[in-house]
Amino acid sequence: MKKNLGSVLALYPTPTVVVGAMVDGSPNWVLVGHIGIIGHDRVMVSLAKPHYTNKGIKATKALTINVVDESMLAKADYSGSTSGAKTDKSALFEYTQGETGAPIINECKLVMECEVDDIYETDTFESFICKINSTHADEKIVNTDGKIDYNTFKPVLFEMPTYEYLRTGDVIGKCLSFGKELKKENK
Amino acid sequence: MKKNLGSVLALYPTPTVVVGAMVDGSPNWVLVGHIGIIGHDRVMVSLAKPHYTNKGIKATKALTINVVDESMLAKADYSGSTSGAKTDKSALFEYTQGETGAPIINECKLVMECEVDDIYETDTFESFICKINSTHADEKIVNTDGKIDYNTFKPVLFEMPTYEYLRTGDVIGKCLSFGKELKKENK
Repeated sequence: MKKNLGSVLALYPTPTVVVGAMVDGSPNWVLVGHIGIIGHDRVMVSLAKPHYTNKGIKATKALTINVVDESMLAKADYSGSTSGAKTDKSALFEYTQGETGAPIINECKLVMECEVDDIYETDTFESFICKINSTHADEKIVNTDGKIDYNTFKPVLFEMPTYEYLRTGDVIGKCLSFGKELKKENK
Repeated sequence: MKKNLGSVLALYPTPTVVVGAMVDGSPNWVLVGHIGIIGHDRVMVSLAKPHYTNKGIKATKALTINVVDESMLAKADYSGSTSGAKTDKSALFEYTQGETGAPIINECKLVMECEVDDIYETDTFESFICKINSTHADEKIVNTDGKIDYNTFKPVLFEMPTYEYLRTGDVIGKCLSFGKELKKENK
């Protein structure tokens, strides 16, 4: 029996990320829960307009998306608890500037360095649509085929309704392998 | 030690969904891996332009986002294995039409019924940006506060790099609770 909960965002859980950008020459870090993937070549991070980081992203047209695992969760969570306008968060993470100048968190095991391609604007948010310049992964989370192994990495997941972090669980199986029997039956 | 993998989409895992839409008066279902959340009020589903479903979405300006759990994975996976242009998938799921006319999968425990607000177009994809008309959740996955409990629901997650489905894991804890010690230290 289903209940109608009204207009509720329910498209969770999704990866928890720290977005990094240079703001007036210093790195700033902000925790972001609302992200997306567009086609096969673009990612999106959605930030409320008042965020301090937005100014830096717009000035440099570059940002990093640092995917959070449990080893860096305390610092990531802290980055979401205070604004760069009030608190200097530049020393929170050791970092290396990528080709675009955007700051890559050294201890983060999976980072996309991005160039901003477009900004999708709504009333109160700027959603930065980005092309991926390069993706940096710790060799421990890369399999022998050179692919990212999410079952080893286990990103921290976010959901808004009860405002909790969840673990990435185990592998169920390969995509497009579960419908095969149905496909045979329908032939 | 990090490796540069080049330009790799790495923003995973994300919920696996079946998008439903009426196409020429019949329901069609398509498995979608690339989704997003914009601000606090919009969701996005990104579909390659040749998809049969896109025609129906554009004609009706409505769609449903059916979040997949393991109980419906075989059928969901099948919906991604063949096009509605070649195979009539209308009988795959029993459905009920919502207020917008879009088809809600009866057996799916979490469904957003959406109105298309905008289409963000890139070379080969149409990303449908939607407002949520209503969210329908099985009472078994709604907690006593009326919120969706993802730890009970456990959506099937998708990742592209090794093309696998993953389970939603356990709760780690409340958002903005892990950085508290750091916040005190920085005061």
